[in-house]
Amino acid sequence: MKASVIGATGFAGAELLRLLDGHPEVELAAITSESSTGENIAAMYPHLSVRIETALGSLQDIEQIADKSDVIFIALPHGHAMKIGRQLKMHDTKIIDLGGDYRFKDIRVFEEWYKVKHEDPETKAVYGLTELYRGQVKDAKILANPGCYTTCSILALVPLLKAGLIETQGIIIDAKSGTTGAGRGLKLGSLYCSVNENFHAYGVADHRHTPEIEQVYSEYAGKDVVIQFTPHLLPVDRGILATCYASLKNDVSEAQVQEAFAEMYADEYFIRLRGQGACPEIKNVRASNYVDIGWQIDKRTGRIIVMSVLDNLVKGAAGQAVQNMNVMFGIPENTGLTQLPIYP
Amino acid sequence: MKASVIGATGFAGAELLRLLDGHPEVELAAITSESSTGENIAAMYPHLSVRIETALGSLQDIEQIADKSDVIFIALPHGHAMKIGRQLKMHDTKIIDLGGDYRFKDIRVFEEWYKVKHEDPETKAVYGLTELYRGQVKDAKILANPGCYTTCSILALVPLLKAGLIETQGIIIDAKSGTTGAGRGLKLGSLYCSVNENFHAYGVADHRHTPEIEQVYSEYAGKDVVIQFTPHLLPVDRGILATCYASLKNDVSEAQVQEAFAEMYADEYFIRLRGQGACPEIKNVRASNYVDIGWQIDKRTGRIIVMSVLDNLVKGAAGQAVQNMNVMFGIPENTGLTQLPIYP
Amino acid sequence: MKASVIGATGFAGAELLRLLDGHPEVELAAITSESSTGENIAAMYPHLSVRIETALGSLQDIEQIADKSDVIFIALPHGHAMKIGRQLKMHDTKIIDLGGDYRFKDIRVFEEWYKVKHEDPETKAVYGLTELYRGQVKDAKILANPGCYTTCSILALVPLLKAGLIETQGIIIDAKSGTTGAGRGLKLGSLYCSVNENFHAYGVADHRHTPEIEQVYSEYAGKDVVIQFTPHLLPVDRGILATCYASLKNDVSEAQVQEAFAEMYADEYFIRLRGQGACPEIKNVRASNYVDIGWQIDKRTGRIIVMSVLDNLVKGAAGQAVQNMNVMFGIPENTGLTQLPIYP
Amino acid sequence: MKASVIGATGFAGAELLRLLDGHPEVELAAITSESSTGENIAAMYPHLSVRIETALGSLQDIEQIADKSDVIFIALPHGHAMKIGRQLKMHDTKIIDLGGDYRFKDIRVFEEWYKVKHEDPETKAVYGLTELYRGQVKDAKILANPGCYTTCSILALVPLLKAGLIETQGIIIDAKSGTTGAGRGLKLGSLYCSVNENFHAYGVADHRHTPEIEQVYSEYAGKDVVIQFTPHLLPVDRGILATCYASLKNDVSEAQVQEAFAEMYADEYFIRLRGQGACPEIKNVRASNYVDIGWQIDKRTGRIIVMSVLDNLVKGAAGQAVQNMNVMFGIPENTGLTQLPIYP
Repeated sequence: MKASVIGATGFAGAELLRLLDGHPEVELAAITSESSTGENIAAMYPHLSVRIETALGSLQDIEQIADKSDVIFIALPHGHAMKIGRQLKMHDTKIIDLGGDYRFKDIRVFEEWYKVKHEDPETKAVYGLTELYRGQVKDAKILANPGCYTTCSILALVPLLKAGLIETQGIIIDAKSGTTGAGRGLKLGSLYCSVNENFHAYGVADHRHTPEIEQVYSEYAGKDVVIQFTPHLLPVDRGILATCYASLKNDVSEAQVQEAFAEMYADEYFIRLRGQGACPEIKNVRASNYVDIGWQIDKRTGRIIVMSVLDNLVKGAAGQAVQNMNVMFGIPENTGLTQLPIYP
Repeated sequence: MKASVIGATGFAGAELLRLLDGHPEVELAAITSESSTGENIAAMYPHLSVRIETALGSLQDIEQIADKSDVIFIALPHGHAMKIGRQLKMHDTKIIDLGGDYRFKDIRVFEEWYKVKHEDPETKAVYGLTELYRGQVKDAKILANPGCYTTCSILALVPLLKAGLIETQGIIIDAKSGTTGAGRGLKLGSLYCSVNENFHAYGVADHRHTPEIEQVYSEYAGKDVVIQFTPHLLPVDRGILATCYASLKNDVSEAQVQEAFAEMYADEYFIRLRGQGACPEIKNVRASNYVDIGWQIDKRTGRIIVMSVLDNLVKGAAGQAVQNMNVMFGIPENTGLTQLPIYP
Repeated sequence: MKASVIGATGFAGAELLRLLDGHPEVELAAITSESSTGENIAAMYPHLSVRIETALGSLQDIEQIADKSDVIFIALPHGHAMKIGRQLKMHDTKIIDLGGDYRFKDIRVFEEWYKVKHEDPETKAVYGLTELYRGQVKDAKILANPGCYTTCSILALVPLLKAGLIETQGIIIDAKSGTTGAGRGLKLGSLYCSVNENFHAYGVADHRHTPEIEQVYSEYAGKDVVIQFTPHLLPVDRGILATCYASLKNDVSEAQVQEAFAEMYADEYFIRLRGQGACPEIKNVRASNYVDIGWQIDKRTGRIIVMSVLDNLVKGAAGQAVQNMNVMFGIPENTGLTQLPIYP
Repeated sequence: MKASVIGATGFAGAELLRLLDGHPEVELAAITSESSTGENIAAMYPHLSVRIETALGSLQDIEQIADKSDVIFIALPHGHAMKIGRQLKMHDTKIIDLGGDYRFKDIRVFEEWYKVKHEDPETKAVYGLTELYRGQVKDAKILANPGCYTTCSILALVPLLKAGLIETQGIIIDAKSGTTGAGRGLKLGSLYCSVNENFHAYGVADHRHTPEIEQVYSEYAGKDVVIQFTPHLLPVDRGILATCYASLKNDVSEAQVQEAFAEMYADEYFIRLRGQGACPEIKNVRASNYVDIGWQIDKRTGRIIVMSVLDNLVKGAAGQAVQNMNVMFGIPENTGLTQLPIYP
């Protein structure tokens, strides 16, 4: 397969390069960056030195890039992919968008939360949370790769929603992400001295991953689900922990919970069920495509607390994108993604 | 005032030494450590060099220590203070206990959560969350200094409970603490390589600060409050952030919320109200006795998210202990505690 | 004393505000920032909230500021102080410059290393490494506060140079600084994800603190000293460690070394001699004005390795500036600077 | 190949498991731990969950382990491998020791620096700094895998020593290592709160990697080389930077230096020459087997400063061990080691 990465100089783009380099079936066709067109990617990311010393092209050549690519990954801020999607409508190239443009069934939800008009509203993309939508992913032309918080939160509670074990009201997701999630932009809040030894919430009550999570929860619950979602910024490079609170329905037992998770995930390569009483740690999935899930039932309060962790740049972005690519091209889903986490 | 520190080699003990050294009215009488009796404290904590080069005594001499002390701070794990309290019942020395022994009105709650029998059940201590119980603190003989998570969580929601603006059901506190909170004991989980670049929950559904928070919430709500409390371990030295979720009663306005906070805290030296929309950061209170509080009302969900931060070793332990001492001895409450936070 | 801070929004400026706030003899007269004129400093640095809620003025009003200030601290990049110095030549206000403009006896050295023309060449400033030049500091009108690496390196070796115990050739200083040393500017290299879990040298062979160190070494050695100086960027907020290598002259004994250090520093409040065999740690001086010095004689190689640590924002910048102010105004040198280090 | 890991629960052991798991030609035969015999390795290292859920055996069964292993990796503190080496003298199994026991040509040097008597003095092991001793590694029965500081320091200067471009006197290596280098033992100095925001030297003038570096330097220089070696502890998990100072011989040009490095390393897969002016960063080689080398000639002082970085757990331990295994078994040297570094 020939793959291109549009927006290769962001953290997700660079992580795609790393994963594609280690993928036995992929050859890199082109990489682009609007801010650094013409530069060698290894000059900006010396960890790629010797291995990926490629000059960055430009979005302006997207059609030629499409001509030589079986698949194009778009790792740009929202608002760009919909333009590219429209432009490449007639090309065979498959598109995997790591941004928000194609993630919503209802365009109005996108426009409300992202505050921009959608420019490619009639295109139907497939939502690529692979474990849940594998069947559709297979046939996708444009794939909307889910957000990082989203993947983590959805995988944590969907089994319980599907099995009807929790109330759909009152769900609270208190999530914490490493700083790569904030991107590589030059902001005071992203400086070392701002993040180090620090911790705080942000986007309280209005983070854009909220409606994305609700969309899938609602589908699995069979009715509208409204959640409380609060992200926080962790002083680590990578990793998300979602602490998910839900009220258990009356008399739900530990065994039923265990069974609901096992039924959905027992055969999933990238999901490791750590079970009742386990508190998953972000470092145990670092630099891997794994999602570790544990939970605790609190009989005193009638709640279940489900905790899920993933690496926001891998399963939360580039890794899941490659996983989707594998499915879209009919090769084993874990190809190029079997590295163990890096610990410590 | 002559002050002694029992258990001076833990993090809270060492922080007490730092604060007492800078306190204009205090002279250090004695310090002890059972594990390092006879050693110079500065050999273990070189940051104290030159300034506090004192040999560590032993608990065995507690009565002589009491004889020469106006106040004794106990910074030992739970279970010790109640023995000392019983032993010194006839001494005039005031006792400020940083552990859990004397924090509960109902001894059975203590015994249930701490799994030990109370050995000094008839002594009535004062619960020293200074801002709330200043009147009683003044006359305390034995003062129970609150826990770190506890102080942070209580101060965040008590104004709303007191004003009756939130439901007493469904309160969730998702708290995150720096690693000094785990103490100086040699545990795998406290190693640098275990904590750095990592994050996880612990003590889910059974952390001992839960009933302490509930005790005060219930008092202010005028009825029993059951909360969900989940602590997490942050890869930072110091600092706690409590993200507190509560359902607002119908039609409560932003102004009412602001007013409830202002009514309780407008004159408090150590509480800085950051207001609606602010997300307080732990680094902004580091090494100080401040508590910063911000909040966000989410009209979509009907909830308020209150966020409070403090330094777990200062307002969450040693600083509040000194604040209580000041009140107990009738000197200005902020004496020795006016240092600004260290940033960055 | 009325003090003003020119350039209050950089890290050194903000640290000055913290120290001046805790100084019993100082009242803040004015603060400025060219990039944020008119804003409240606490909006940029919320750790100052409630305590320092002052609007930032502008350099344009420097003369009015001088009129109401006994002392002006300049915390701007090099090149600005010399303009201010020239402008305020006729004012009584004392000036303490934290930048490089006035640090060199020989203007040509400044111009060669800083690549700018000096605009106030005839003014004779006093070089404010307080422990060494206290006598001149007392009478200074314009004081050049030394660099952070400089202070750390100079204090480490000057006693041995003065006593003639080490060779003046072959001195190597391998220094490591926390990230506040890189300032608050928006640079890719200062992002959290660039610094965290990383470490590297920079400015190898051409860092501007080199000639400043050589100037003082040469003075104490009585002949020209050329050194090798290599700075590195540490993934911490604060702190410098200078590992200084020098060849001991034949037959110099441990006792002679100890004596040389004691002779210069035994009575210095801010210098803590940790002695032969000690490896000082940056965390033991954090947020304080202390310098800890230890050393190791290596008989196998004939060298002495002297290690010194300080907080680059305190003794390496704002703290030493306040120390100099104290001397210049004839009050006890440690006034407002007696806080113990923050540990952990 | 069937491989076993003796001492699998230390950081180097766990890293071996990670690398062997991703190695296409290796099957894990046995793993051991004396402190946790019988336990599942994944219970101690949950990042291995699902993938390596193996019970830990014991050294007591070393002969049976040898029977079923083509190669045995020993990741134990020094003093153990020599016992195993003696015991397995008659087995065909190849041994790769990650400790110090077999690294010295002269047993007396080992005994002097390690303060223990060697129990297998007559065995001649091969010193496995692969790039330098590839020819001997091929035929090794017992391979002494070099130390982490050692590998980093040796690779930095050997090209210049071999080409005779630097003086053999006056070499100083100022090295900085991540905390995994200190191991997983429970020591106060390894606690998060001891390492975080801290930095200091240790083992000044007496670190055991000194004679190992000198041994190879001397061989390449053709005469005895004595160095100054100073290690420091970095607040990061992984990575070593060696800043190496040497005096250039008269009139040595940039081109000659470049040529000397290229001659030795141009064809080396794992060495990336970053050239004159480059300051390599530890994060750019993290979790990979790469060594990045840059340098700076200082005409003012006549010195060259060579800077090399590697991941102490990979090229400094487990990665180089696997690289040596590949050579010993005649398969491509980079098999299983081609992952790109993890950045950020």
